[in-house]
Amino acid sequence: MKRFMLRVAYDGTNYHGWQAQNNAETVEQKLNEALTRLTGEPIAVIGASRTDAGVHALDNVAVFDSETTIPGEKLMFAVQPYLPDDIIIQYSCQAPDTFHPRFCKTRKTYEYQIDNGMRENPKCSRYSYHVREPLDTDAMNAAGSYLIGTHDFAAFCAAGAQVATTVRTIYSCAVEREDSMVYIQVTGNGFLYNMVRIIAGTLIRVGQGAWEPERVLEALESLDRTKAGPTAPAKGLTLQEIQYDEED
Amino acid sequence: MKRFMLRVAYDGTNYHGWQAQNNAETVEQKLNEALTRLTGEPIAVIGASRTDAGVHALDNVAVFDSETTIPGEKLMFAVQPYLPDDIIIQYSCQAPDTFHPRFCKTRKTYEYQIDNGMRENPKCSRYSYHVREPLDTDAMNAAGSYLIGTHDFAAFCAAGAQVATTVRTIYSCAVEREDSMVYIQVTGNGFLYNMVRIIAGTLIRVGQGAWEPERVLEALESLDRTKAGPTAPAKGLTLQEIQYDEED
Repeated sequence: MKRFMLRVAYDGTNYHGWQAQNNAETVEQKLNEALTRLTGEPIAVIGASRTDAGVHALDNVAVFDSETTIPGEKLMFAVQPYLPDDIIIQYSCQAPDTFHPRFCKTRKTYEYQIDNGMRENPKCSRYSYHVREPLDTDAMNAAGSYLIGTHDFAAFCAAGAQVATTVRTIYSCAVEREDSMVYIQVTGNGFLYNMVRIIAGTLIRVGQGAWEPERVLEALESLDRTKAGPTAPAKGLTLQEIQYDEED
Repeated sequence: MKRFMLRVAYDGTNYHGWQAQNNAETVEQKLNEALTRLTGEPIAVIGASRTDAGVHALDNVAVFDSETTIPGEKLMFAVQPYLPDDIIIQYSCQAPDTFHPRFCKTRKTYEYQIDNGMRENPKCSRYSYHVREPLDTDAMNAAGSYLIGTHDFAAFCAAGAQVATTVRTIYSCAVEREDSMVYIQVTGNGFLYNMVRIIAGTLIRVGQGAWEPERVLEALESLDRTKAGPTAPAKGLTLQEIQYDEED
């Protein structure tokens, strides 16, 4: 039995997220079906990030075990014909037998995209959230800087999520404007349920001038979900990259 | 009776082009239905560019006559609720009674978007054509420069198109790379059927190194459709802007 790793990109619009579930199409399920058809073995992948319904990914990671004789680096071409057009394998390789995509140290980067034009751009509306009021990206950057570092992010976690700890480390949080698009890019060692979308919703409040940047620090210190901003819509969020720490 | 002008953006993926036809959904038809429901009058818009099936627009222009008392600049907000999410009115105003969107001198700008990454980006695949071989944008720009000016573009017009003349003026044709995306932007006084997509298909051949740039000049001078490159897929094409000449 060999272990294989896939790097997977997808348009999440038509999926109920990553994780397989009954009565709904998910990315994990599509991968399982494609790999099962390709290999003739009952394959069940393990994903690095269980992205939410409607969230996109350019670089999620999936691992599975198989007896297949297809070389790891060729697997991406072999499995692609069994997948729908909105799921694309970017890379494949054989991985160490002990490699588990969630139990390794990682740096994950998410990007939240905001269409900040006067009128929504229909070419962007699948992948961005439209906010009409001009956003002050300097204020958003000032607000985001309070989140950098190791903190208890309980205030930025969807209520009801069950996790051992709500402490996470954010390495960077940067807001950039390119013409009428605004991008929030956040890199961390892991994220709580809805965490990036709550960060985005909070920074948008600041960018609109409704909240001072310092209010983000108050929300963080409160450990109280109701003190942070709303959860921004899923469609604006993309998992950009997962980096594995080679030293681990 | 007053004349109104709309500037219309749309994601063309789900439409059989602009022009109303039987048994197929089109952008024109959706606009007619929405305006008819809003005003209670049987409205039939006239479009500036009858974009093809699958082609997108950020700024097409539609004109119609109505007795409505809604002020021109408010019309965009009034009609939007009657339209599907992938058609967005960017601007509206009352227009001179004599204004006709096709019988005025215009400059139209189209953009053709190419995903030139090693693997297709699923977030871009609705709006770009994936070409894996690295494209030489310098060679594409050299090739495109032969098209600038007033020429008979018969070689760059779909066979069977019925037009009075195949002479058009191209004001600019520029190819730019941004990371793994390549953009071909063409501005002209009007375009023949499939003209921009044939230009794109031809410049891609040059960018791949299959053709020398000079071959584009030979194709142009031949007036022979078979001497130009293939018609690139519709999904990569967007009508970016229509400028009306104020002097006219």
